[in-house]
Amino acid sequence: MPILVMKFGGTSVATLDRIRRAAKRVGREVANGYDVIVIVSAMAGETNRLVGYVGETSPMYDAREYDAVVSSGENVTAGLMALTLQEMDIPARSWQGWQVPLRTNSAHGAARIEEIPDENILAKFAEGMKVAVVAGFQGVSPEGRITTLGRGGSDTTAVAFAAAFDAERCDIYTDVDGVYTTDPRVESKARKMEKISFEEMLELASLGAKVLQTRSVELAMRYKVKLRVLSSFEEYDPNAGTLICAEEEIMENKPVSGIAASREEAKMTLVSVEDRPGIAAAIFGPLADSGVNVDMIVQNISDAGATDMTFSCPVDQVKRAEAALNSARERGDLRFEELISDETVAKISLVGIGMRSQSGVAAKMFRVLSDEGINIKVIATSEIKISVLIDRRYAELAVQALHDAFELEKA
Amino acid sequence: MPILVMKFGGTSVATLDRIRRAAKRVGREVANGYDVIVIVSAMAGETNRLVGYVGETSPMYDAREYDAVVSSGENVTAGLMALTLQEMDIPARSWQGWQVPLRTNSAHGAARIEEIPDENILAKFAEGMKVAVVAGFQGVSPEGRITTLGRGGSDTTAVAFAAAFDAERCDIYTDVDGVYTTDPRVESKARKMEKISFEEMLELASLGAKVLQTRSVELAMRYKVKLRVLSSFEEYDPNAGTLICAEEEIMENKPVSGIAASREEAKMTLVSVEDRPGIAAAIFGPLADSGVNVDMIVQNISDAGATDMTFSCPVDQVKRAEAALNSARERGDLRFEELISDETVAKISLVGIGMRSQSGVAAKMFRVLSDEGINIKVIATSEIKISVLIDRRYAELAVQALHDAFELEKA
Repeated sequence: MPILVMKFGGTSVATLDRIRRAAKRVGREVANGYDVIVIVSAMAGETNRLVGYVGETSPMYDAREYDAVVSSGENVTAGLMALTLQEMDIPARSWQGWQVPLRTNSAHGAARIEEIPDENILAKFAEGMKVAVVAGFQGVSPEGRITTLGRGGSDTTAVAFAAAFDAERCDIYTDVDGVYTTDPRVESKARKMEKISFEEMLELASLGAKVLQTRSVELAMRYKVKLRVLSSFEEYDPNAGTLICAEEEIMENKPVSGIAASREEAKMTLVSVEDRPGIAAAIFGPLADSGVNVDMIVQNISDAGATDMTFSCPVDQVKRAEAALNSARERGDLRFEELISDETVAKISLVGIGMRSQSGVAAKMFRVLSDEGINIKVIATSEIKISVLIDRRYAELAVQALHDAFELEKA
Repeated sequence: MPILVMKFGGTSVATLDRIRRAAKRVGREVANGYDVIVIVSAMAGETNRLVGYVGETSPMYDAREYDAVVSSGENVTAGLMALTLQEMDIPARSWQGWQVPLRTNSAHGAARIEEIPDENILAKFAEGMKVAVVAGFQGVSPEGRITTLGRGGSDTTAVAFAAAFDAERCDIYTDVDGVYTTDPRVESKARKMEKISFEEMLELASLGAKVLQTRSVELAMRYKVKLRVLSSFEEYDPNAGTLICAEEEIMENKPVSGIAASREEAKMTLVSVEDRPGIAAAIFGPLADSGVNVDMIVQNISDAGATDMTFSCPVDQVKRAEAALNSARERGDLRFEELISDETVAKISLVGIGMRSQSGVAAKMFRVLSDEGINIKVIATSEIKISVLIDRRYAELAVQALHDAFELEKA
């Protein structure tokens, strides 16, 4: 039998009724001829409740105990899902992480998956079991302690199972119905995409984060796991949602697939940094050590041994970045004339694998923004993405104008 | 280091504050020089919530999934207790049943403990850990599935650990402060006992059930585990509660230790049963098959090949008993003239290991009841117990009169 992995997030299993609804979808795939591995999250609210208990008990908690407590939410859903399927006369059983066993390293709270042996579950499929319900988000360390995988852990669990069992597809059921060309709240003409490549999905992280954690997309890309994101709240439709797959499976690419906008960005400029080898390390080392997530980096041409270095980061990390750079200056590790922070910018990104083969995308983007009177403050490009920083006030306008200009509403 | 087992029931860990309070008691025993194994129940209400989910999902549930779901409540408490102890700078960690591993048979929902290897926990004690917090009520089957131990499972877990680790004592913290000579709601002069023998505790089950499950007392008796029952809501007192121990450790025994009263009893009499070999099996076989818990059995002398057989059972099982006996008669397995059910009786029991060496206890009991004008309907005796069935209206009066007559208020 071909194997299908289906993952249901917290809102999709928030109540017993919703679990039943999810189980019906599982039943339909069983009827379609699949052996199904279902990955479940905790019922919505449960994990927060447990995290709250831990935080209240011990602000600087032992991550091993945190994991032991917090993982219990998924165990409950897994058992209930198995029971629900059994009520529908579908042979099913639940598996906790340690029972599979899903082996991880010992990085409690953010463990990496190391191995998923398939024998136990395949043996049960061979005996006639149709559905293995697996508690997501959790595994077992080499020391035999329970680990959790951290943010997006259940999506990552699902993709890892799909890879380990060579599943035909990994369906991620969530509360949105797919990936859109841009945020539909900003641009009403935003269109749900049928397919998108892994690379584009990763670059559209700011759109995609509401849908899928980056980590699970990376894993899917590495192991060529076909991912589908779809809503558990819509009627069954075999073509629902958005398929995230390898580039080769997307026949024709438009130059631009989607537009991401990130409003909470800041631009920081170090004026007149001495231009010497190792200067980038001297700047970005301390920033990384302080946990600042630097995104775009632009270095202007050198002038008399000095250069201006501009970078962007989330606006709520500006204070931390300033502190890190100023203390590097005080220690004498770094010399610069001035540090200018601009907390009023937004980042607009065009993403599309078609860019590789089609030129003129950047030029068109700049012209569209210019026509709207929007000034570009910083530009950064990668093979399949062009990002600009602009004044935050114009973020929506920019998205709408670009969406129109590149005709993203058309399939 | 000597090992102490401390068990906290659901009401003793119902909130984070109560967990802290319990942890303080654990800390005091660590300060007293013990390595401590703490057995915890789920926070009060949690197990009911989970059982409710299972029942609503699947009325005829798969007991393996039930166990997987329901056991998660104890896991949460175990982690939180370990964190609380760590906050108090006491080296502690949690263990789920499968991590110990507490091995059971595969009787899901009512599993029997088969083995508790001590290496893992002893190794941690040797490394300096002071407290092992173990999730009660759960184990792991030979198939690697989670099992639960059924009613009283956490008490049983505690006693089994005390036996496996040769603990100095097993302290059961609950919401009552010990075992009383009789129900204090019936007799205000009821006195908390300092010590009671295992045998007496078992015979006082109807008193003790509110305190300790019979199963855990049986286990303690078999392995000579000193059990102490005490309240987690009272101030710390090294001599608090009631110690349940081997007879040899109780110096001087009064003839009567306690009085149990069970109001919801029924008396059933089969009139003119044929008196032949195998007749008892013909009566009590069908009753056992129907799940009727027969307690006292009295057979009158035979008269012309027929006898009257009287037995008692819980009043809510009378209908079931009648059905079982009548259908045995219809099948021709059993002949009797009439079946008389009396649903208005109560059982009063005097219990005391001192009875063995002191005569006249029964005579005194009958005289006391007679003086109060209470008619005795059935008498049954064992080595350390005398039970009578009387009219339910007189149950309180009988308890009070007997408590007075045997001076149980005096230590």
